[in-house]
Amino acid sequence: QYSVTEVENLAVWLLAIKTLRIQPFNLPSLGPYDVKIRIKAVGICGSDIHHFKNMRVANFVVKKPMVLGHECAGIVEQVALEPGISCRQCQLCKDGRYNLCRKMKFFGSPPTNGALANQVVHPADLCFKLPDNVSLEEGAMCEPLSVGVHACRRVNVGPDTKLIIIGAGPIGLVTMLAARAFGSPKIVIVDVDDCRLSFAKDLGADEIIKVSSIMQDVEEEVVRIRNAMGGPVDLSFDCVGFNKTMTTALQATRAGGNVCLVGLGQSEMTLPLTSAAAREVDVIGIFRYRNTWPLCIELLRTGEIDVKPLITHRYNFTQEGVDEAFETSSHGRNAIKVMFNL
Amino acid sequence: QYSVTEVENLAVWLLAIKTLRIQPFNLPSLGPYDVKIRIKAVGICGSDIHHFKNMRVANFVVKKPMVLGHECAGIVEQVALEPGISCRQCQLCKDGRYNLCRKMKFFGSPPTNGALANQVVHPADLCFKLPDNVSLEEGAMCEPLSVGVHACRRVNVGPDTKLIIIGAGPIGLVTMLAARAFGSPKIVIVDVDDCRLSFAKDLGADEIIKVSSIMQDVEEEVVRIRNAMGGPVDLSFDCVGFNKTMTTALQATRAGGNVCLVGLGQSEMTLPLTSAAAREVDVIGIFRYRNTWPLCIELLRTGEIDVKPLITHRYNFTQEGVDEAFETSSHGRNAIKVMFNL
Amino acid sequence: QYSVTEVENLAVWLLAIKTLRIQPFNLPSLGPYDVKIRIKAVGICGSDIHHFKNMRVANFVVKKPMVLGHECAGIVEQVALEPGISCRQCQLCKDGRYNLCRKMKFFGSPPTNGALANQVVHPADLCFKLPDNVSLEEGAMCEPLSVGVHACRRVNVGPDTKLIIIGAGPIGLVTMLAARAFGSPKIVIVDVDDCRLSFAKDLGADEIIKVSSIMQDVEEEVVRIRNAMGGPVDLSFDCVGFNKTMTTALQATRAGGNVCLVGLGQSEMTLPLTSAAAREVDVIGIFRYRNTWPLCIELLRTGEIDVKPLITHRYNFTQEGVDEAFETSSHGRNAIKVMFNL
Amino acid sequence: QYSVTEVENLAVWLLAIKTLRIQPFNLPSLGPYDVKIRIKAVGICGSDIHHFKNMRVANFVVKKPMVLGHECAGIVEQVALEPGISCRQCQLCKDGRYNLCRKMKFFGSPPTNGALANQVVHPADLCFKLPDNVSLEEGAMCEPLSVGVHACRRVNVGPDTKLIIIGAGPIGLVTMLAARAFGSPKIVIVDVDDCRLSFAKDLGADEIIKVSSIMQDVEEEVVRIRNAMGGPVDLSFDCVGFNKTMTTALQATRAGGNVCLVGLGQSEMTLPLTSAAAREVDVIGIFRYRNTWPLCIELLRTGEIDVKPLITHRYNFTQEGVDEAFETSSHGRNAIKVMFNL
Ligand SMILES: NC(=O)c1ccc[n+]([C@@H]2O[C@H](COP(=O)([O-])OP(=O)(O)OC[C@H]3O[C@@H](n4cnc5c(N)ncnc54)[C@H](O)[C@@H]3O)[C@@H](O)[C@H]2O)c1
Ligand SMILES: NC(=O)c1ccc[n+]([C@@H]2O[C@H](COP(=O)([O-])OP(=O)(O)OC[C@H]3O[C@@H](n4cnc5c(N)ncnc54)[C@H](O)[C@@H]3O)[C@@H](O)[C@H]2O)c1
Ligand SMILES: NC(=O)c1ccc[n+]([C@@H]2O[C@H](COP(=O)([O-])OP(=O)(O)OC[C@H]3O[C@@H](n4cnc5c(N)ncnc54)[C@H](O)[C@@H]3O)[C@@H](O)[C@H]2O)c1
Ligand SMILES: NC(=O)c1ccc[n+]([C@@H]2O[C@H](COP(=O)([O-])OP(=O)(O)OC[C@H]3O[C@@H](n4cnc5c(N)ncnc54)[C@H](O)[C@@H]3O)[C@@H](O)[C@H]2O)c1
Ligand SMILES: [Zn+2]
Ligand SMILES: [Zn+2]
Ligand SMILES: [Zn+2]
Ligand SMILES: [Zn+2]
Repeated sequence: QYSVTEVENLAVWLLAIKTLRIQPFNLPSLGPYDVKIRIKAVGICGSDIHHFKNMRVANFVVKKPMVLGHECAGIVEQVALEPGISCRQCQLCKDGRYNLCRKMKFFGSPPTNGALANQVVHPADLCFKLPDNVSLEEGAMCEPLSVGVHACRRVNVGPDTKLIIIGAGPIGLVTMLAARAFGSPKIVIVDVDDCRLSFAKDLGADEIIKVSSIMQDVEEEVVRIRNAMGGPVDLSFDCVGFNKTMTTALQATRAGGNVCLVGLGQSEMTLPLTSAAAREVDVIGIFRYRNTWPLCIELLRTGEIDVKPLITHRYNFTQEGVDEAFETSSHGRNAIKVMFNL
Repeated sequence: QYSVTEVENLAVWLLAIKTLRIQPFNLPSLGPYDVKIRIKAVGICGSDIHHFKNMRVANFVVKKPMVLGHECAGIVEQVALEPGISCRQCQLCKDGRYNLCRKMKFFGSPPTNGALANQVVHPADLCFKLPDNVSLEEGAMCEPLSVGVHACRRVNVGPDTKLIIIGAGPIGLVTMLAARAFGSPKIVIVDVDDCRLSFAKDLGADEIIKVSSIMQDVEEEVVRIRNAMGGPVDLSFDCVGFNKTMTTALQATRAGGNVCLVGLGQSEMTLPLTSAAAREVDVIGIFRYRNTWPLCIELLRTGEIDVKPLITHRYNFTQEGVDEAFETSSHGRNAIKVMFNL
Repeated sequence: QYSVTEVENLAVWLLAIKTLRIQPFNLPSLGPYDVKIRIKAVGICGSDIHHFKNMRVANFVVKKPMVLGHECAGIVEQVALEPGISCRQCQLCKDGRYNLCRKMKFFGSPPTNGALANQVVHPADLCFKLPDNVSLEEGAMCEPLSVGVHACRRVNVGPDTKLIIIGAGPIGLVTMLAARAFGSPKIVIVDVDDCRLSFAKDLGADEIIKVSSIMQDVEEEVVRIRNAMGGPVDLSFDCVGFNKTMTTALQATRAGGNVCLVGLGQSEMTLPLTSAAAREVDVIGIFRYRNTWPLCIELLRTGEIDVKPLITHRYNFTQEGVDEAFETSSHGRNAIKVMFNL
Repeated sequence: QYSVTEVENLAVWLLAIKTLRIQPFNLPSLGPYDVKIRIKAVGICGSDIHHFKNMRVANFVVKKPMVLGHECAGIVEQVALEPGISCRQCQLCKDGRYNLCRKMKFFGSPPTNGALANQVVHPADLCFKLPDNVSLEEGAMCEPLSVGVHACRRVNVGPDTKLIIIGAGPIGLVTMLAARAFGSPKIVIVDVDDCRLSFAKDLGADEIIKVSSIMQDVEEEVVRIRNAMGGPVDLSFDCVGFNKTMTTALQATRAGGNVCLVGLGQSEMTLPLTSAAAREVDVIGIFRYRNTWPLCIELLRTGEIDVKPLITHRYNFTQEGVDEAFETSSHGRNAIKVMFNL
């Protein structure tokens, strides 16, 4: 058993399903553009939980022990870390769509180790200095917030965009915060869970709509959504990704609007896609983010966005803290973001 | 029984399923911007056939006798007619997306009568003068060609776009002609029908791929498609619109590419949409066209596009001609475009 | 001499340079889509003043008596009026860029009469109902605000856009309000006039910079602008349109950014355009607006934008009121927007 | 005096104005992603000539001996070389606009040595394998062609774009070839020089227009340009960059169209920019290119573009060849592209 003071660098290793251990983590030698970061805050994300429960997410399978974590901030000076290192040389990288790089090395996405460790080595241009009034925890929150920001950029949210967000989990909520910063004048949040809806309302949703998980209710729920909006829905974010949520999104959106699919809940989907296509409602996919840290930090610095209310639970970097933190995060509901402080 | 010489204006009326009659058609009085057109060429489209067989297309139901036809050209001077009259006053119209206008009156789309008649009245700005070297039949072909042109514009086809087209019916073929005119350097056509594939090859496809209708074959067919392309597929047009064709399209397309859904074959679809969204493969819908006639006529005038080979059958405007024409067109395969000359 | 009660409809006629008379104004007969509006609020714009002083703006020359005014709101129900009637039939209109229509009939732009009259007749779809909490004066302010909104849309202002605005006149100020609503995190205002700068600061500018009218000072002023921004300038709005202001804009803007030319101060310009082009700093032109009233009204309704502080002077619809109002407005400085109430 | 066989690597060094010497060139050691290329073909560009005559281009000044050349192809396997190495780490690089990177190291742009040498070392991802049917000379021509391709991409040339190109030098001509490949249906070329115009006509211009260098002729010349176009001009490329050519471009272009400034002929420009801005004619700048080699090579491979006719003169890599080559290229007119074979 190690304690943080005994060895120089420790990390949370996922050894098997629901089996996490804090163990030593050897740092690689530093390349010419790398810096060594003392990690200070790490949030737990849905995909960490997927790895924890199933040892996999989508096609990424954990085949050998791996360090978890990618929502992270730390100290050289205090920096937030963008977790993915792309190749910088393929066509997609050169074209600025580096999030789609096939050679991406992404913290805690197998086989790349994560950042839930005392120290990591990372390229300097992916470390972003935090201003005095942005904390390390907020720095770590740049990661989930980036998903919302990237989604808002891809579908060009602005003051002309009245929108719904289906799913009031961490991702739906950061998308709401981002959409507000992009100028959206009206945001309606849709969820099955009262607890999540009231959280969303407190965080600034204009309207909240409680829905069921039953497909037969879509038609009636779309009417309620449109009434709550008080006009056409220009854009729908599906931050869940089930048949029912995408069906709702496609049917609620006005001709010429967009549906942005952020949630990755289900692989095969059954959908009324044709009638949406025949109204030129396009489906826009999202994969992580690109070039979002400077904007996120600026939005936090100016107070335009406040992510602190999203951090509902905090834990220390001890074996006990780790075990409890993953337990809490996997149960959801009143836990939005679970954060480690190192 | 009427003959064309007996009364001033006759039209093909759809009275019941598979029941067409040439009968008189009273013209409305002319408004200040209208012109009266002597119709000279009309093509039969898939939706005409749907009406002929089922008295409906999607949600549009033929509730009382209706004149068919919207692929048309005629004479004031010789003009091609854009078949839809939008309201010009709603938000979508003012925004230039008038094809999505909810008050659209579209030839032969219930409850609006079509153009398969000796004469029709139409707004002058939707009648486009044909140059000397563009025939009335080619003028009528501007309508299906417009679908391909609009699709190519929406997804921004250019010399950087290597693409596949699934479905080598009239719509797949005009999409191919349009994509070529937009500069696409490599076009692979995919169909289940040898006859259609060899037609596509003769019309200029770089490669053709015969596929099955069996879902289990997708994976292997995607490999064949990629090999035929000799590189990543930037864009896939689905001009069929079945589960299998969209699944093929989504899986064949490279990260960051687009799938354009033109075919309206199936209303509920079961698809691997999530994994596509997670590669930011967007799904772009198509509904008809907007502002396409000037470009179509220019492409025909300069010879950049030749639509004449697509006209495989021609009929006269007699009761007998009408009956045979719709019979031929509904059987497909070696019939691509069936055209009336009036 | 007429009084408002004596005749049914009176208007402010421009008879000669600096010669305005309230005289009767015969309304045209109503077309099928027209409504008659009782005008209740009209603002004075720079171009009204140009007409007042010179009987011309750019190539538009006042050749016979003309009614002034295009910033207007009135009553059927209470509506704001979009002042331009485009042809709805040319290529640009159909394409949604109707502000560029060559057949545009625009209130108070020769030879079309303006709205500074008791009543006008106008197409219903260009009259926008005002919500209860938006006043007629605010309705009239939708017109100048629309210039700012259209400019922000054309250059895609968002939370990523740190920008400068040169010129703190009414147009510069509405551009600032619009840019804020579009999410711009940092706005630096540049002017030669202390009075205007302090007005801008009170209205919400992050920083203000006093500059000279001397070309030799550009280099040093660009340094001050960059320092005030605390980082690269992504976008510059030139709301003046002189050699010096455009030179400042071109040099202050970062590689890959935009300069948006709104001000029309000078027809021939001498500029360092080449070095800007070689940094891909594009110059984006603005002509009025399109499809902006619904958004402007929404922004006023929600309080996202408050235009009331811009209305610094109010006058009644009497010969005396008219004379004083145009006098005040032509002297500028502490007069921002001069408004008539009818 | 050295001969090629005596030492391993020789290069053309610019020592002083009009003073070129072939002298040894020490290669740097290879980094992990670098390859060593045996240079086989190098074209002379206008900027090489500027350096040759003036020791400077714009703000880039040759302060110590420098190797010339950036239009180049060579052998590892046979590759074409993209001449600029960007930092891959700044905001512009990550955003895909790496041509605007401030840390760009560009062959033959001071202080970076060029490629007019037997061998150079270059990152592998900037070396593009040439297919069997694309020669090394054509490989070197990818560089100027890239300017045309990048310009066509930035302004989105397609079948809807009828355009003029002012200036029929190498850059105007490659822009014409690129615009054709992007689908432009009508291209009118404008120049002062009969020799260049007839070259352009032979290369495929639809129409050519001889103009003067006198500003007073603009109005009449714009009429002739519009007549030759037979309709509105959607886009103007200025590949010269003088007051007169930009004035012509701004006035010839239709409302809502674009002027693309490629030529860098003059630093301070006097222009009727306001009236263009008030028709929303935007000015789009060009700086080199990004991500163009794969497309250029594909266009050459398929024969869609043929650059061979542009190579009017060829020289060997001897002191005598070098002196003659630069002499020929600086006199222009019947010399379009001067090429070295090594
Ligand atoms: N595209 C990307 O790059 C990206 C990045 C991060 C996360 N994600 C995905 O986003 C999704 C959401 O992540 P999260 O962390 O917010 O998850 P979460 O599970 O905490 O939140 C999901 C929310 O959806 C609600 N919900 C469930 N079923 C619903 C239904 N039928 N109708 C309405 N609401 C319903 C739940 O009550 C919950 O509030 C996940 O699928 C995750 O994998 C995608
Ligand atoms: N979006 C629009 O605005 C618009 C406009 C016109 C037509 N359409 C639609 O486009 C579609 C095509 O029209 P068309 O006139 O070309 O129809 P069509 O029936 O003549 O052609 C369809 C082609 O698809 C092929 N096909 C069928 N199943 C296939 C499969 N599993 N895999 C590959 N190929 C398969 C057929 O062999 C045939 O060649 C129709 O659904 C029509 O309603 C849409
Ligand atoms: N493009 C369009 O569609 C459109 C629409 C409306 C108005 N405009 C134009 O916008 C411009 C501004 O209109 P306005 O009503 O705000 O005018 P204004 O004259 O009230 O304001 C101009 C401001 O610019 C300042 N200024 C003058 N010279 C300056 C300099 N050298 N440097 C910095 N600031 C300087 C003045 O002090 C003043 O505050 C006018 O040219 C008007 O014609 C254009
Ligand atoms: N933006 C970029 O990234 C980039 C890249 C390469 C070259 N350039 C620039 O492009 C320009 C053209 O390069 P080039 O190699 O073709 O040069 P060039 O000198 O060979 O060709 C210029 C052509 O313009 C013609 N011309 C001169 N004055 C004219 C006038 N008043 N009206 C019409 N035509 C006139 C000449 O007769 C000649 O044919 C240069 O300024 C060069 O610096 C820019
Ligand atoms: Zn990559
Ligand atoms: Zn409409
Ligand atoms: Zn018009
Ligand atoms: Zn860089």
